[in-house]
Amino acid sequence: MHAAIYGGPFDITVGERPDPVLQQPSDAVVRVTLSCVCGSDLWYYRGESPHALGPIGHEFIGVVEDTGADVSGIKRGDLVVAPFTFCDGTCANCAAGWPSNCLRGGSFGNHGVDGGQGEAVRVPFADATLVPVPGSGHSDATLASLLALSDVMCTGHHAAVSAGVRKGETVAVVGDGAVGLCAVIAAKRLGAERIISLSRSPARQALAREFGATDVVPERGDEATAKILDMTGGIGVDAALECVGTGQSMTTAFGIARVGSVVGAIGAPHDVVVPIDTVIFRNVGLRGGVSPVRRYLPELMPDVLSGVINPGRVFDYTTGLDGIADAYAAMDERRAIKSMLRISGPAA
Amino acid sequence: MHAAIYGGPFDITVGERPDPVLQQPSDAVVRVTLSCVCGSDLWYYRGESPHALGPIGHEFIGVVEDTGADVSGIKRGDLVVAPFTFCDGTCANCAAGWPSNCLRGGSFGNHGVDGGQGEAVRVPFADATLVPVPGSGHSDATLASLLALSDVMCTGHHAAVSAGVRKGETVAVVGDGAVGLCAVIAAKRLGAERIISLSRSPARQALAREFGATDVVPERGDEATAKILDMTGGIGVDAALECVGTGQSMTTAFGIARVGSVVGAIGAPHDVVVPIDTVIFRNVGLRGGVSPVRRYLPELMPDVLSGVINPGRVFDYTTGLDGIADAYAAMDERRAIKSMLRISGPAA
Repeated sequence: MHAAIYGGPFDITVGERPDPVLQQPSDAVVRVTLSCVCGSDLWYYRGESPHALGPIGHEFIGVVEDTGADVSGIKRGDLVVAPFTFCDGTCANCAAGWPSNCLRGGSFGNHGVDGGQGEAVRVPFADATLVPVPGSGHSDATLASLLALSDVMCTGHHAAVSAGVRKGETVAVVGDGAVGLCAVIAAKRLGAERIISLSRSPARQALAREFGATDVVPERGDEATAKILDMTGGIGVDAALECVGTGQSMTTAFGIARVGSVVGAIGAPHDVVVPIDTVIFRNVGLRGGVSPVRRYLPELMPDVLSGVINPGRVFDYTTGLDGIADAYAAMDERRAIKSMLRISGPAA
Repeated sequence: MHAAIYGGPFDITVGERPDPVLQQPSDAVVRVTLSCVCGSDLWYYRGESPHALGPIGHEFIGVVEDTGADVSGIKRGDLVVAPFTFCDGTCANCAAGWPSNCLRGGSFGNHGVDGGQGEAVRVPFADATLVPVPGSGHSDATLASLLALSDVMCTGHHAAVSAGVRKGETVAVVGDGAVGLCAVIAAKRLGAERIISLSRSPARQALAREFGATDVVPERGDEATAKILDMTGGIGVDAALECVGTGQSMTTAFGIARVGSVVGAIGAPHDVVVPIDTVIFRNVGLRGGVSPVRRYLPELMPDVLSGVINPGRVFDYTTGLDGIADAYAAMDERRAIKSMLRISGPAA
C-alpha cells in the first residue's frame, strides 16, 4: 500500500508499506478514508522532537476491512473513528477513564502500527479502540467533523473539561491553532457565556467567532494579560485554556486565570515553566494533557452527527496522499490551519 | 499589651504594643486565648522569606472583647476561631469561595493588624472573618483542636480537597509536619481507605498512624517513589498530597501520582519545578495553595466539637507568651512538631 513516510526533518514522501494484516484476534484492519496532519506532527517535521523514520500520522477515519476472531463490536464495512491512540479498554488506566495512557496502548504511526497517513492501518484492540459511526451517506462536512473527533476536537474538549468550564462562565482560549479553535467550540458547548479568543490572524479570528468566540484579543504576552484583566474587572477569567504549549502561552494563561480557577492545558510542552507562586498564592490549578479521546467520543459524536458542532471547519486545506509534503508545509508555513488528506473514496 | 515581636532572623522577643482598639464599625477586638507557631513562620524566622519587623503570628482563637457598630454575628464574650487571613466576605474572590484571596483582606501580623502571637488583636470585617464556637466549657484538648482549625487543619484539608480525595482511595501524604499530619486526618475523614505517610521520625510516624495512616514510608526521593509505586502495583496513588513545598517533595508527589490524578499542594514553594511532562503526558494535575480556611470552618468545626477529629494532637510543645523564643526554636530544631502558646486563661 501507499503511505506517508517520514525520512527526517522536512522530508515527508509517499512510499510503499506492506499491506497491514491481522496479527492478533483482537485486531482490525481499517481502510483509511480521511486523515490529516496534526499540529504535534510539526514538531518532528521541524526536527524539534524525535520520531522513528517510517510511517506517520495518528488521526483517521476509515472503513473496517477485516476483523480478528475476538472482535465483536465492529464489523467489515463499518465506518469508524480511530482515537489517536489505541487502548485495551481493560487496564488500570483505561478502567479509570484514561485510555490514552493505556498500559498496553500506543499511538498510530508508532509502537509497531502503521500511521493514519496511509491507505490502511492495523488497529490493535479494535473493540476497545474504534468507535463505529451510526447511519450512512454522511456529507463531506460531517465526515470532516468526524475526522476532527480523532484528535483535535477531543483535545480542545479536554482543555475545557480539565479547566472545569461551566455554564455562564467567561473563558479565554490561548492559541488559535486547530485545537484552540476546537477549544472555543468546546467552551461554547459546555455553556460558556463569554469566550475570548487570543488570535491575531484574521482568518482564524473569523473561525473563532463562527465557533462561538464573543471577543478576540490580538495582543500577546504581557499586553494580552493586561487587556484581558481589564476586560474582566481585574479579576481574570473563570477558565483559561492553554492550547499552544510554549512558555509564553502558559505564562499568559496563568496571568489571566482568576483566583481559584484551573488552567486547562493540552499543548505539548516546550520550554514551559509553571508559575508555582500563582498556583499556591492564587490557588490557580493546572490540569490537562493528552486527551482521553476514546472516552469523549461517545459524548461528542452525536453532536457532530446532528450538526450541533462542526469542528471539521478547521480543515482549510485538502489534498490527496500524493500531496502529503505540501500538506505539512502548508501548516508549517501557516498557510493552512489544518490539512486534510482524502485517501480513499467516501464511505458507502 | 504584650506581644511577640519579630526583630529579624532568629530574633523573637516579647515586647509592648498599643492595646488594639476598634477602628472601623466592622471591626472586633479579640483577646487571644491560644496561639501557635506555623511552619511558614519559620521561613522568616530563618531569614529565608521577608517579614516586616514587628508583630507576628497568624493563628489564634480568643474571646471577643469589643465589637464595632456594624458587627452583628458575634458578640462580646463569644469564643471565636480566626482564620489566618481576614476577609470582607463580599468581594469577587470571597463570593467565589476564596476568602483567603479577599481583595480587601490580609493576614494577621501583617497589613496593619496585630499578630496572633500577642494578647489581643483587632480583627477587620469581624462578621465575615470570625467563626463563633458553640457551647462552653470546652476541654483543653478541644480548644487545641479549635486552634488547629485556624490554619493547619484547614490547610491539610485543602490539600486533600484539592486532590479530590474520595471514599476508598489510596492517598499518599508527602511531608510529616503538622500540616502533613493534618492532611492524614483529612484524607481519612474524606474516606480514603489506604493512607501512606512519608515520614522518618518515630514520633511523627506514631501520630500519623493515630490519625489514620495505614502505611509509613521512611524513604525519601527516588527511593520513596520506587517504594510507593511498588506498593501500588506500579500504578501510583489516587491522590498525592504535597505538604512540604520543596523541589524534592513536589517531584516525589508527581512521581507517585497515578495517571489522571491530581497532586494537592499546600506547601509554600521554595525552588519548586513542576514536572510539566508529567502533567501533560500522564494527565497528572496540580491544585492547591493558600487554604480558604473561612470556607472550611463551618464544615470542620462540628467534627472537632464532637471529637471525630483531633488535630490539636499536633501540638506537642506548649508554653506561654514569655516562652515565644523557644517555641520558635523548638520547631526550627525539630524538637517540636508544632508549638502552642497559652496566652490568656481558658474561655469562660
